[in-house]
Amino acid sequence: MAEVVHMIDSEVFLAFSTYATFVILKMMLMSFMTSYFRLTRKVFANLEDTALVKSEEDKKKLVRIDPDVERVRRCHQNDLENVVPFVLIGLLYALTGPDLRTALLHFRVFVGARFFHTVAYLTPLPQPCRALAFLVGIITTISMAYRVLRTAFYL
Amino acid sequence: MAEVVHMIDSEVFLAFSTYATFVILKMMLMSFMTSYFRLTRKVFANLEDTALVKSEEDKKKLVRIDPDVERVRRCHQNDLENVVPFVLIGLLYALTGPDLRTALLHFRVFVGARFFHTVAYLTPLPQPCRALAFLVGIITTISMAYRVLRTAFYL
Amino acid sequence: MAEVVHMIDSEVFLAFSTYATFVILKMMLMSFMTSYFRLTRKVFANLEDTALVKSEEDKKKLVRIDPDVERVRRCHQNDLENVVPFVLIGLLYALTGPDLRTALLHFRVFVGARFFHTVAYLTPLPQPCRALAFLVGIITTISMAYRVLRTAFYL
Repeated sequence: MAEVVHMIDSEVFLAFSTYATFVILKMMLMSFMTSYFRLTRKVFANLEDTALVKSEEDKKKLVRIDPDVERVRRCHQNDLENVVPFVLIGLLYALTGPDLRTALLHFRVFVGARFFHTVAYLTPLPQPCRALAFLVGIITTISMAYRVLRTAFYL
Repeated sequence: MAEVVHMIDSEVFLAFSTYATFVILKMMLMSFMTSYFRLTRKVFANLEDTALVKSEEDKKKLVRIDPDVERVRRCHQNDLENVVPFVLIGLLYALTGPDLRTALLHFRVFVGARFFHTVAYLTPLPQPCRALAFLVGIITTISMAYRVLRTAFYL
Repeated sequence: MAEVVHMIDSEVFLAFSTYATFVILKMMLMSFMTSYFRLTRKVFANLEDTALVKSEEDKKKLVRIDPDVERVRRCHQNDLENVVPFVLIGLLYALTGPDLRTALLHFRVFVGARFFHTVAYLTPLPQPCRALAFLVGIITTISMAYRVLRTAFYL
């Protein structure tokens, strides 16, 4: 019993909470970047949104697709596909009571890889920068999933 | 120890569970709305799906893009990008043992803002209705993230 | 107090951790399938990604849309829209202390339905195979949400 409570109150759980919050906030930042690009470049997905900018142009022409907006959106989508699994598996991982140093290594590598992934996607840096950042993130999550399965396996 | 257990068993955690479940169910409802629009308007993303409606028309012509279906899908995507971070950060926030009234305020404002966001997106209401609903949701989540970081900060 | 701790340490929570991890890993597998299709069919979303394949063709022509890649991506998106709600609601559900057999039934049906959904989407199997797999998954999640609301209702 004390062991379980220790897990939630532990430094591992505090560290998980900190890194998870940072990487979720980073993911949410992509929404603002999309909005910023849409407003400054006048590229909208909905006709009613064109009212947000003063423009002499025909409103309907502002509802279009822009390569830079699509790039930010793909980056956001990639975050959804990778950060959410990290946080969900990381939560279960933190509850398995891993060694603090090992846990910190996982959290730091993942969060670092995802921040670099965003830079690599938006600059864009030449490949395989982004591909490697993506792979490092995935491998970290799989490594945590492996520990969860090894510890909690119950089918 | 008793403190941590109190957190999970607390009214804050019960309230979190209730509001999180409501807003996730609302998000899942968007899947049904997409299916409804696809079936009634005969607009499909996959050739095999055209078998779901009896139609005299050429099946291939039913695989196309429809502005109303895309609007529902963008609304669903916006939910994924905002509701999932709310639930993940809200879970960590509920474990930091916040004041019940403050916590309820956060949960109610977020859930209210997201329900209004959906109405504003699908009606559609004139801007900046939707933009404000989106912002209120984001700010609520950031406010909870701030408390998580202040309480659990461990890098 | 002992009751709450029992919930996290219980067989229900272990089972939840196992099934949730499996279905999240399955969802992450879709990223690799997308990459595999993009690399083998030389279909890219970003100009810089074309450097990942040796190709005589004009690089710009490789940035295009391919029906098979889009199919994998829709399948991945459907996973995001369904697996993430399952894991989030399932976590709260596991903390309500359900009967082990009932909980296992929910987890097994959901995970089975989603694996079948992926097979049905990518083969593709004739409808309504995929529609039924999707529905079974949604109903399982709603059934868990119902128990969470019945147990933890606090507005």
